[in-house]
Amino acid sequence: MTEKKGIKIVTIGGGSSYTPELIEGFIKRYDSLPISELWLVDIPEGEDKLNTVGALAQRMVEEAGVPMKIHLTLDRKEALKGADFVTTQFRVGLLDARAKDERIPLKYNVIGQETNGPGGLFKGLRTIPVILDIVQDMEELCPNAWLINFTNPAGMVTEAIYRHSNWRKVVGLCNVPVGMKMGVAQMLDVDADRVHIDFAGLNHMVYGLNIYLDGENVTETVIKKLTSGEASMTMSNIMDLGWQPEFLQSLGVLPCPYHRYYYQTGRMLEKELEEAADKGTRAEVVQALENDLFELYKDENLRGKPEQLEKRGGAYYSDAACNLIDSLYNDRKDIQPVNTMNNGAIASIPNDSAVEVNCVITKDGPKPLAVGDLPVATRGLVQEIKSFERVASEAAVTGDYKTGLLAMTINPLVPSDHVAKEIFDEMLEAHKDYLPQFRHLEVTQ
Amino acid sequence: MTEKKGIKIVTIGGGSSYTPELIEGFIKRYDSLPISELWLVDIPEGEDKLNTVGALAQRMVEEAGVPMKIHLTLDRKEALKGADFVTTQFRVGLLDARAKDERIPLKYNVIGQETNGPGGLFKGLRTIPVILDIVQDMEELCPNAWLINFTNPAGMVTEAIYRHSNWRKVVGLCNVPVGMKMGVAQMLDVDADRVHIDFAGLNHMVYGLNIYLDGENVTETVIKKLTSGEASMTMSNIMDLGWQPEFLQSLGVLPCPYHRYYYQTGRMLEKELEEAADKGTRAEVVQALENDLFELYKDENLRGKPEQLEKRGGAYYSDAACNLIDSLYNDRKDIQPVNTMNNGAIASIPNDSAVEVNCVITKDGPKPLAVGDLPVATRGLVQEIKSFERVASEAAVTGDYKTGLLAMTINPLVPSDHVAKEIFDEMLEAHKDYLPQFRHLEVTQ
Amino acid sequence: MTEKKGIKIVTIGGGSSYTPELIEGFIKRYDSLPISELWLVDIPEGEDKLNTVGALAQRMVEEAGVPMKIHLTLDRKEALKGADFVTTQFRVGLLDARAKDERIPLKYNVIGQETNGPGGLFKGLRTIPVILDIVQDMEELCPNAWLINFTNPAGMVTEAIYRHSNWRKVVGLCNVPVGMKMGVAQMLDVDADRVHIDFAGLNHMVYGLNIYLDGENVTETVIKKLTSGEASMTMSNIMDLGWQPEFLQSLGVLPCPYHRYYYQTGRMLEKELEEAADKGTRAEVVQALENDLFELYKDENLRGKPEQLEKRGGAYYSDAACNLIDSLYNDRKDIQPVNTMNNGAIASIPNDSAVEVNCVITKDGPKPLAVGDLPVATRGLVQEIKSFERVASEAAVTGDYKTGLLAMTINPLVPSDHVAKEIFDEMLEAHKDYLPQFRHLEVTQ
Amino acid sequence: MTEKKGIKIVTIGGGSSYTPELIEGFIKRYDSLPISELWLVDIPEGEDKLNTVGALAQRMVEEAGVPMKIHLTLDRKEALKGADFVTTQFRVGLLDARAKDERIPLKYNVIGQETNGPGGLFKGLRTIPVILDIVQDMEELCPNAWLINFTNPAGMVTEAIYRHSNWRKVVGLCNVPVGMKMGVAQMLDVDADRVHIDFAGLNHMVYGLNIYLDGENVTETVIKKLTSGEASMTMSNIMDLGWQPEFLQSLGVLPCPYHRYYYQTGRMLEKELEEAADKGTRAEVVQALENDLFELYKDENLRGKPEQLEKRGGAYYSDAACNLIDSLYNDRKDIQPVNTMNNGAIASIPNDSAVEVNCVITKDGPKPLAVGDLPVATRGLVQEIKSFERVASEAAVTGDYKTGLLAMTINPLVPSDHVAKEIFDEMLEAHKDYLPQFRHLEVTQ
Repeated sequence: MTEKKGIKIVTIGGGSSYTPELIEGFIKRYDSLPISELWLVDIPEGEDKLNTVGALAQRMVEEAGVPMKIHLTLDRKEALKGADFVTTQFRVGLLDARAKDERIPLKYNVIGQETNGPGGLFKGLRTIPVILDIVQDMEELCPNAWLINFTNPAGMVTEAIYRHSNWRKVVGLCNVPVGMKMGVAQMLDVDADRVHIDFAGLNHMVYGLNIYLDGENVTETVIKKLTSGEASMTMSNIMDLGWQPEFLQSLGVLPCPYHRYYYQTGRMLEKELEEAADKGTRAEVVQALENDLFELYKDENLRGKPEQLEKRGGAYYSDAACNLIDSLYNDRKDIQPVNTMNNGAIASIPNDSAVEVNCVITKDGPKPLAVGDLPVATRGLVQEIKSFERVASEAAVTGDYKTGLLAMTINPLVPSDHVAKEIFDEMLEAHKDYLPQFRHLEVTQ
Repeated sequence: MTEKKGIKIVTIGGGSSYTPELIEGFIKRYDSLPISELWLVDIPEGEDKLNTVGALAQRMVEEAGVPMKIHLTLDRKEALKGADFVTTQFRVGLLDARAKDERIPLKYNVIGQETNGPGGLFKGLRTIPVILDIVQDMEELCPNAWLINFTNPAGMVTEAIYRHSNWRKVVGLCNVPVGMKMGVAQMLDVDADRVHIDFAGLNHMVYGLNIYLDGENVTETVIKKLTSGEASMTMSNIMDLGWQPEFLQSLGVLPCPYHRYYYQTGRMLEKELEEAADKGTRAEVVQALENDLFELYKDENLRGKPEQLEKRGGAYYSDAACNLIDSLYNDRKDIQPVNTMNNGAIASIPNDSAVEVNCVITKDGPKPLAVGDLPVATRGLVQEIKSFERVASEAAVTGDYKTGLLAMTINPLVPSDHVAKEIFDEMLEAHKDYLPQFRHLEVTQ
Repeated sequence: MTEKKGIKIVTIGGGSSYTPELIEGFIKRYDSLPISELWLVDIPEGEDKLNTVGALAQRMVEEAGVPMKIHLTLDRKEALKGADFVTTQFRVGLLDARAKDERIPLKYNVIGQETNGPGGLFKGLRTIPVILDIVQDMEELCPNAWLINFTNPAGMVTEAIYRHSNWRKVVGLCNVPVGMKMGVAQMLDVDADRVHIDFAGLNHMVYGLNIYLDGENVTETVIKKLTSGEASMTMSNIMDLGWQPEFLQSLGVLPCPYHRYYYQTGRMLEKELEEAADKGTRAEVVQALENDLFELYKDENLRGKPEQLEKRGGAYYSDAACNLIDSLYNDRKDIQPVNTMNNGAIASIPNDSAVEVNCVITKDGPKPLAVGDLPVATRGLVQEIKSFERVASEAAVTGDYKTGLLAMTINPLVPSDHVAKEIFDEMLEAHKDYLPQFRHLEVTQ
Repeated sequence: MTEKKGIKIVTIGGGSSYTPELIEGFIKRYDSLPISELWLVDIPEGEDKLNTVGALAQRMVEEAGVPMKIHLTLDRKEALKGADFVTTQFRVGLLDARAKDERIPLKYNVIGQETNGPGGLFKGLRTIPVILDIVQDMEELCPNAWLINFTNPAGMVTEAIYRHSNWRKVVGLCNVPVGMKMGVAQMLDVDADRVHIDFAGLNHMVYGLNIYLDGENVTETVIKKLTSGEASMTMSNIMDLGWQPEFLQSLGVLPCPYHRYYYQTGRMLEKELEEAADKGTRAEVVQALENDLFELYKDENLRGKPEQLEKRGGAYYSDAACNLIDSLYNDRKDIQPVNTMNNGAIASIPNDSAVEVNCVITKDGPKPLAVGDLPVATRGLVQEIKSFERVASEAAVTGDYKTGLLAMTINPLVPSDHVAKEIFDEMLEAHKDYLPQFRHLEVTQ
C-alpha cells in the first residue's frame, strides 16, 4: 500500500442501513484517511437497498466536497481487486432470519437473541461459510488488505477465520466497548476522552476490568452508581432490568450489556416473552425502523446522515470502524478494544483464539495488552462462551449435525440436552436455505 | 510413622451410618494395613449414634478376630494425638440441614441438591470452617498424618484447605469415579479390574476421558450403549433421565451422574419438583433409611455390615477409602482417581487448585497424571465450577456476605442475580446456627 | 494385535554389539512376552556383524529352549510387515562418524561428545532423516506397532518425530535413568526396587527431583553422600570429576551424569583433551571393545551373553527396553522414565515436545505424571536444550544451513558464534556422505 | 497527588555524574512536568560530589529560569516525605566495587562485567538490600510515589522488589532499548520517531523481535545491514566484534549489545583480557572520565550539561527517565520499553517476574503488550537469566551462602561449579563490607 495513491475501501453488505454512518465517518476523517474509492457491494436480493444507500452516499460525498468515488456493484470479486480495507456488515438471510433466531428459542422458553444462545449459534452457522468465501477471494485479489468485520457474532466469526483459514489480517469490531465507555462518561458527566477502560473478554462478553478517569481508578465509584439506581447503562436492543447491587459490587468489574443474558437469564427471558407478545421481537421492531429509514434515504434532498439512524442500534459503529481504519493506516499506536488473536494476552484462553481486548493499533495490526488472569469469578463464563464459539465454528465449517448440536447444548443459555435437540432441529429446518453445508443431512438421515 | 507399631486411624463423624462399611474394609485389609487403633469421634449431639455404631464396630472386629482397638470419644483433640490417618465424614447440621439445602432452592425453581448449586454452596459454607479447625488441630497433634476427606462438597473443601491453610497432606475422596468404573464394567459384563478409565475434572464434575477394556480403547462403544438405551448408569441419589444420544456421542467422553444437573438442568428440576412433592427430597428419604439402619445396628446379634446399608448411597466408599489408605501406607504406586492439587495436570486450572484426576498413589501422596487440555466442549463448565468453588471457599473463610452472594450468582444452576439474592438470604437465615462466620452481619446490616 | 498369535519384534540396527543383551532380556521374559518372531535388520555395510550377532542370537534361543524364531535381513520393508514392536538402535556412519563427532569439536576447545554439543547436533542431523524414513515405512507396513527408539540423541529424535511426522506411537528410551536408580541403590546399599526417583527433564538432561527409599524422601541424604566423596555415580563413558558440594546441595536435585558437561564444562573439557591425547576418544576406545566383542561372538561355543559386554556402556539397556515392551504389551501400568510427549507434564515446555519423565506405561502408551514447575535453578538449562533440540530437528529435516548453524550457536557448550561456524563447517564437510539433505549446498554456495 | 501542587522528585544517588543529564531533561519538560522540588540524596561518602553536582544543578535551573527548587541532603527519610517520584541511581561501593566486579572474574578467565556474570551477581547482592530498605521507607513516607530504578542490575533489582516486598509501584529503566532504537534509526538514516521496535526479554537481555519503519516491517533489512558490515550498533562500554552473519540472520531478531557476552563469550573474554591488560577495565576507564567530569562540574561558569558527559556511557538515560515520568504523570498511554511485572506478556516467564518489554505507560503504571512465545531459539537463554536473577535475588535477601553459589554456578558465563566456588569466595571476601547479610558466615564457617 503506497501512500501516494488514495485508499480503496470495499464494504460488503453495502446496502445496509448503517452505511450512511460509515460514509459520514469517512468524510470527517478524509484528511488523514484519503479514501479515493469506496465500493459498496451487495447481493442481488439487496440491489434496491444498495441503490438507495449508494445514491445517498453519493449525495453525502458531494455535499462534503471530498473526492471519494462511490462504486456500487453486485460483483464482489470485481470490487475486491486491490482493496486496502474490506469491511463486512452483511446479514445472511436478512432480518427475516434474525426474526427466526429470536422467535424459535422463545417457543422453548429459551432466550431468543441474535448473537447469544441458539440465535447466535445459527447466525454463526449462516455467516461463517460466507466470510470464509470472502477471505478466500481476498487471498487472491487483495492479499495485503485488512478485513474489518462487523458482522455478528463477531467473536465466533473471527475465531472461525483463525481456525479455518490462513488469513490473519482480520479485526473483529463491535460497538459494545465504545458504548460502555460513552455510558461511563455520561454517568460521570465528563468528556469521553477523559475515560479509559481496561477491556478484556470476548465479543459480547467483554468486561471493563478497571475504569479510569484522568488516569485515576474510579471502578468502584462507577459500579456504585450503576447499582444505586443513579445511573443506567445499556444498549437500545437490551433491556436494563437493574443489577443486583451486592452481586455487582462483589464482581468488581463492569459487565457489558449482554452479560445480562447470563447473569439474569430468568428475568431477561420473562421480559423477552412479554415484549415479543406485546410489540414483537427486536428483529420485528428493527424491520419497521429500517423501512422508515429507507424511506428517508430515498429523499433526494437528504444529503447527510439522518438523525433517526441513531435509534437503529448501531451507535458508535462508524466511529469505532473509522478510528480503527485510521489507526491501521496511519500506524497511530493508540489503544482500541477489538477482536484479535489472543497471543497470551488473556491467561487460559488458547493463544490462537479470538478475544476482545484493548490493543495498540499499528500498521502491522492490533497488538493486545497483556491482561494476565481474568478475575476468578468471571473466568468460567468466558471459558464457556469460548468453548461454545470454537465448537460452533467447527460445526459451521464441517456442517456436522452432531457438532452443531454439541455447540447448542453446551451454550449456557440452553437448559438441557433434549431441549437443545428440539430447538436445533427446528432452527436447522427454518434456516435450511442458508445452511448448505448441512444439506447432505437430507440424504443421509 | 515406623512400621513396627500398628496404624492409628481417626474417623471424625464416626457415628455416621457409613462407618460399618469402613470397618468392614479395614478388617478385610488387616494383613497389609495393620490398624491397631481406630478412634471414632463425634460431637455431643451425635453421642447416641456414636455409641450404637461403636458397639457394632466392636462386635465386627471381635467377630473377625483382628486386634484392632476401637475407641469412642467426643474429644477430637485426644483422638488426633499421633494419628497416622484421619478420615472425615461428618455432616454439619446433620440431615436437617441437608433437607434445607434441598428444599429452599426448589421454592425458587432452582435445583436443590446437597453438593451442587445453592445447596452445595451452603454445605460448603458450613463445612469449611470445621475442616480448617480440624487441620489446625492436626498441625499440632499429628503433623505427619494424612487427612482423607469424604465430607462433601469434597472439591470445595479440598480447595479451601489448599487456599486457606498450609496443610498439604490431604486427599479428597469420592465414590463417583469408582461407581462409574463399576457401571461400565457391568455394562460391558466384565470384571471391573479389566476396565480402566482416564478420569479428569473436578469433584462431582469428573469426566471419563477414555475408557479401556484390557488396555483397548472402548470409549465409543460405551457411549453408544449408554445412548442406545441398552444401558443406564447413575447413582442411587440421581435420577437417570437418559442422555440425548447425538449430544453425548459428540461430547465423546463419559460424564458423571452429577453432570445431569448441568446438561439437563430443566428436566432434572422438573423431576425434582415432582419427587419432592411426591415422596420428599433425598434428605427426607435418607432420614428414613438412616432410622431403619440404626435400628438394625442396635441389634446385638448383628456382627457384620447389614445388607441394607447398600441402599444408603455410599456404595464403594469403603473400598475407595481403604484402597487409598492402603496405597498411601504401603507406597503401592497404583492409580486411583482422587482430589488433589492440580500441579499442572489439567491445563487452564490453576496449579494450586484441587482437581479430581487419576493419580499414582505413593507414600509421599498422590501424583496426578498429566491430562493436558480437557476436550474443548468440557472446559467451560469445569472452569465455571472451579471459579464457583474458589469464590465459595473464600466466602466460607471470610464470612463475607457479598462474596457468598457472588458465589451463588456465578453458579451455573442459578438463573439470575436477583433470584440468587433471594435464595442466599433465605438459606443464610435458615442455616445461621452453623454459619457463625457470617454472624457479624446481624449487627452491621 | 490379538494375543493368540505371538509377538513380532523388529530390531533395526540388529547387528549391534548390544543385541545379545536384548536377546537375553526377551528370553528371560518369554512367559509374559511371548515373542514368536524377532527380525534383526541391518544395512549392507553391517551384513557381517549381523550374521555374527544373528548366529549368536540363534544359539542363545536354542540354549534357552524358547520357540522364538530369529530372522536376519537387509530388507527393512520385509521385516516391518505386521510388526508389533520396532526397536531402533542403529548408528548412521558407524563408530567412525562418532569419532569425528568427538574429535572435531576438541580441535576448537569445545566438548566433543556424541549426544551433547556439536557432536550431538551432527548425530541428530544424520539420524533424523533415517528415523523419519522408518516411520514412513511403519505407517504403511505396521501402523499399529510401537516404535521403541534407543538411537541417540534420543530426545532430539523423538522431538523430530513429533514435529515432522504424524506418527505418535513412539517411545524414546535411555538407560540413564535406570543407571541413576541403580547407582542410588548401590550408594544406599539397598535393593533397587526399594528406590524410587521422580525423574523429569530431557534426555541426557534428566534430573531426579526426589529420591525415595521405601516411600520416604531421602534426596538430601543421597546428595550428601554424593558430595561428601563417600559415593560416586556416573556411567562408563563419563568421567566423575566430583561435584562442588555446596552447589549440588543448593541445587537440591540429583543431576544425571551428562549434566557434568554443563555444570563443569571447563573441567570436563580439560579432561577430555587429556584423555583424547592419551588413549583416544571414547569412540576409539569403544571401537577396540567392539572388535573384541565380535571376536567373542563368533565363538560357536558361546551360547549366552558374554560378561565383557557390560563394559560396553549400555548397561541396563536391555532391562529398560524389555520392561517397557512388556508393560506396553501387558498394560502393566507401572512407572517408567521414558521420552514421550509432554502434554503439560512439565510446565513451560511446549505440550507437543518430547520430555523424559516418569510415566505410567499402559497398552495405550506412556502417560506422564504431572511435574508442574521444575525447580527454578534447573529451568534455564532445560529450556536451552529444548530450544536446541527443536532448532536442530528442523535443520535435520530441512537441510537448511543457517538453521543448522543457529542450532550449533545456541548450544550452551559452544562458546561463540564464530567458533560455531568453524566447527559447523568442518563437521558438515566431514559427515557429508551421511547428510544428503544438506547436499544442495554444494551447488548453491 | 493533586495536580495543583508541583511535583516532588527525589533522586537517590543524586551526587552521580549523570545527574546533570536528568536536570536538563526535567528543565526541557517543565511545561508538562512541573517539578517544584527536586531532592538530591546521597550518602556521607558522597557528600562532596553531591555538593558539586547540586551546585551545578542549581545553576542550570537558574539559567533556564524554571521555578524548580533543588534540595541537597544526606537524610533520605527527610527527602522521601510526600515524594511523587523517586529515582534511584546509586552505586553501592562506588566505582571501586565495580572494578573488583570486573577484575576478579577475569583472573579465572571469566567475563568480568558489572551487570552480567559474576560481576552482575555481586552488584545485585550489594544493591538489593539497599533498594529494599528504600522501598520500606517509601511505604511509610510516600506510599503513592513511583519508584523509577536505574540502578543495575535493573532486572534483578526489579525482580527482588516483586518477590521480597509488597511494593508494586516500581519501574526498572534501562537505556539499552532506546540506544538500540537510535542505532537502528542511524543505520537507516531516518528520524528515530519513524522507527518502532517490538522489545521483549529481560534487562540487558532484550531482543528487538520486529523492527518497523513507518509501520512497515524492516527487521530483515536491519539484520542484513548489521551482518554485512555496513553498520555497527553497540554501546560505549561494549566492544563490537561483529556478528556471525548467517547466525544472526537465522536468529531473525535484533540482539542487544549485551547479548554479545552470551553469543560470543569466548571472543569477548579474549578482548576483555586484552583491554584490561592494556588500558584497564571499564571501571578504571570510567573512573578517569568521572574525575574529569567533576572537575568540569566545579566550574562556576558552567550553567548547562557539558558535552563530555556523553562519553560516560549513559546516553539516553535522561530521555528514557524523563519520558517515563512524564507519561506516568500525564497518563500519556504511549509505548515505552521498561522493566515491569510480566503478567502473562511473555509466555513461560512467571507472571510475577520482571521482564523488559514494550508497555503502554499510564498513570496507573506500565501495561505490557502481549508478546506470546518468544522465538524458539531465544527462549533458553532468557530462561537461564531469569532463573539466575531469581536465585540471585533470593541470595541477596537471605544472605545464604549456598544460594549465592548456586546463582553463580547456573550463570551461563561461568564455566564450572568449581570455578564458580573460587570466584564466589574471592568476591565475597572482596566485597564483604557491602554484604552485611552474608556476615554471619564469618562466625559459622
